Amino acid sequence: MNASAPARWELQPLPYPYLLFLGDTTEPTLAKTAFGLRDWIPERCVGEWGCAEGTVSTGLPRLRPREARARGARGLVIGVANMGGFIGERWVPLLVEALEAGLDLVSGLHAKLADVPELRAAAARCGRQLIDVRVPPPNIPIATGRKRTGKRLLTVGTDCALGKKYTALALARALAARGRSADFRATGQTGILIAGGGMPMDAVVADFEAGAAEMLSPDAPPDHWDVIEGQGSLFHPAYAAVSLGLLHGSQPDVFVVCHEPGREHVHGYPDYPLPSIAETIELTVRLGRRTNPLIRCAGVSLNTSHLDPIEARDLLAREAGELGLPAADPMRPGREFERLVDSCLA
Amino acid sequence: MNASAPARWELQPLPYPYLLFLGDTTEPTLAKTAFGLRDWIPERCVGEWGCAEGTVSTGLPRLRPREARARGARGLVIGVANMGGFIGERWVPLLVEALEAGLDLVSGLHAKLADVPELRAAAARCGRQLIDVRVPPPNIPIATGRKRTGKRLLTVGTDCALGKKYTALALARALAARGRSADFRATGQTGILIAGGGMPMDAVVADFEAGAAEMLSPDAPPDHWDVIEGQGSLFHPAYAAVSLGLLHGSQPDVFVVCHEPGREHVHGYPDYPLPSIAETIELTVRLGRRTNPLIRCAGVSLNTSHLDPIEARDLLAREAGELGLPAADPMRPGREFERLVDSCLA
Repeated sequence: MNASAPARWELQPLPYPYLLFLGDTTEPTLAKTAFGLRDWIPERCVGEWGCAEGTVSTGLPRLRPREARARGARGLVIGVANMGGFIGERWVPLLVEALEAGLDLVSGLHAKLADVPELRAAAARCGRQLIDVRVPPPNIPIATGRKRTGKRLLTVGTDCALGKKYTALALARALAARGRSADFRATGQTGILIAGGGMPMDAVVADFEAGAAEMLSPDAPPDHWDVIEGQGSLFHPAYAAVSLGLLHGSQPDVFVVCHEPGREHVHGYPDYPLPSIAETIELTVRLGRRTNPLIRCAGVSLNTSHLDPIEARDLLAREAGELGLPAADPMRPGREFERLVDSCLA
Repeated sequence: MNASAPARWELQPLPYPYLLFLGDTTEPTLAKTAFGLRDWIPERCVGEWGCAEGTVSTGLPRLRPREARARGARGLVIGVANMGGFIGERWVPLLVEALEAGLDLVSGLHAKLADVPELRAAAARCGRQLIDVRVPPPNIPIATGRKRTGKRLLTVGTDCALGKKYTALALARALAARGRSADFRATGQTGILIAGGGMPMDAVVADFEAGAAEMLSPDAPPDHWDVIEGQGSLFHPAYAAVSLGLLHGSQPDVFVVCHEPGREHVHGYPDYPLPSIAETIELTVRLGRRTNPLIRCAGVSLNTSHLDPIEARDLLAREAGELGLPAADPMRPGREFERLVDSCLA
């Protein structure tokens, strides 16, 4: 993406191409890592695999580890991002099979692969690697609050898992396509696997949360854009701390609110109604101006994947009219999305 | 304090009485751990010690480790809470001297005692313990957002280090003195050393921050009060993530705003003006009602230690009048403080 800022925390080279592991997942939103890799680095994904109980599919060929290895796969990526980030007990024999077939394991879960004795033993026996990408760098500083040079865009959400990463990736690509210097800054496991580096914001110790965000997007040339992947939501009963630390440390000049039309409560929290987009804009400005008084909302990104093209266009037009801001679905390129990009650059 | 809720995360028995170590500190606010222990558990503190460069004193007798040991001390507590929580290089020879004199070391810093090779070696050589109290328990859950039984009071602040812990300790004692069932719930190193247990909120991984606060104050009898020590400030450019996770997870019914009159900017951040008390009340209600719609402000706690009694009384009266809420300095017992307690119970 025409990167001009210095690269940091390059991961150890990752063993792609990948076999995507779906565990025993029956809910597509929990397999967002697998979908993210399929959508953004399809050239590195040879197939998918999972427990018999699982019902989610990425549409890639279903392959056992031995077949995947024969087709060139070098690593199995855990494609599941479950609540709490644990390694399911049912997964373990399948992960051992992958190691025995000659695949390394790559995980972005909170739980560490090497903490599962069976995996540690099998990896040692087979001479394979266990790679955890959700490990923050050492020596993250306490945030200074000092305003940094360069421009920053942050995607924020009304909830988790509704398009903050896709929106940031699409905006970074669009800025680069317009000849701007732009970096996608990954803050979660899937983004880090896509970008090959980043800051796992949810795995950072809370006192250092804003400092980690400052570290992720350091001083840059005045016309450089860091497009930062948002995390969680300021309204989330469990994850708002992550969102606020990321907002304060990112000091965004511009933010884009991501939302999934029709979602009415926080995913997994039926007692928590989703905030409106207008409320989300207002609270983000209110809290964000503490570290960047010039923060502004450039527009709205709606995940309309469940609508047909005409319904989606109508909905985007309606939302744009109501909010007085561009509204686009970054996965539907076109005039609306270009208007959103214009507004980010305005 | 008439505890009725179950005790959790009891620390290993701590080696008191203590010698309080002040390092090379020249700023009293950075020695808040030492002052906290002196003020709240004086019966466990035999003296103080530090580098020749240090200028801060708790007023306790200055003793070398050997003298302190002779007067009954069993542990040296690092009484400094510096930015970033590191072990100063200059401290190391003095800490080795303490180990050699027969004292265990107790620390609540982010940095771990055993990570300093000289300390590890000296502790092994002398058969002494290195005790880090800022270690969260394993298996903290993701917050559920479920409303819990019992009553909760949280102290919040316009900044760090201006009275949130003292206010919570004083309110917990006052509730107990009125025959209420009340627990002080410690959330920082000093509070944990005073209470003998608690949750080091700033050392918790950010994704689990609100969950840690839920764990700290579990379901309790309907008339039981958990009085929870606040951390940081929602307006702090580095620590707001901690404050928001603690607010969401604590689900306070009642909060008390702590402030130091005359402080004009965030300590150590001259570019960040302090919020007003009214602004702090408004934002705390705004964010806190997400997990407890009935949250209310019971009043204000002002740290008037730099004022004489008459100035302090006048200031408290003026603030109470302006805000329409009780205002008291918990370190000055009397009518104002009793009104604040009344308001918490109202």
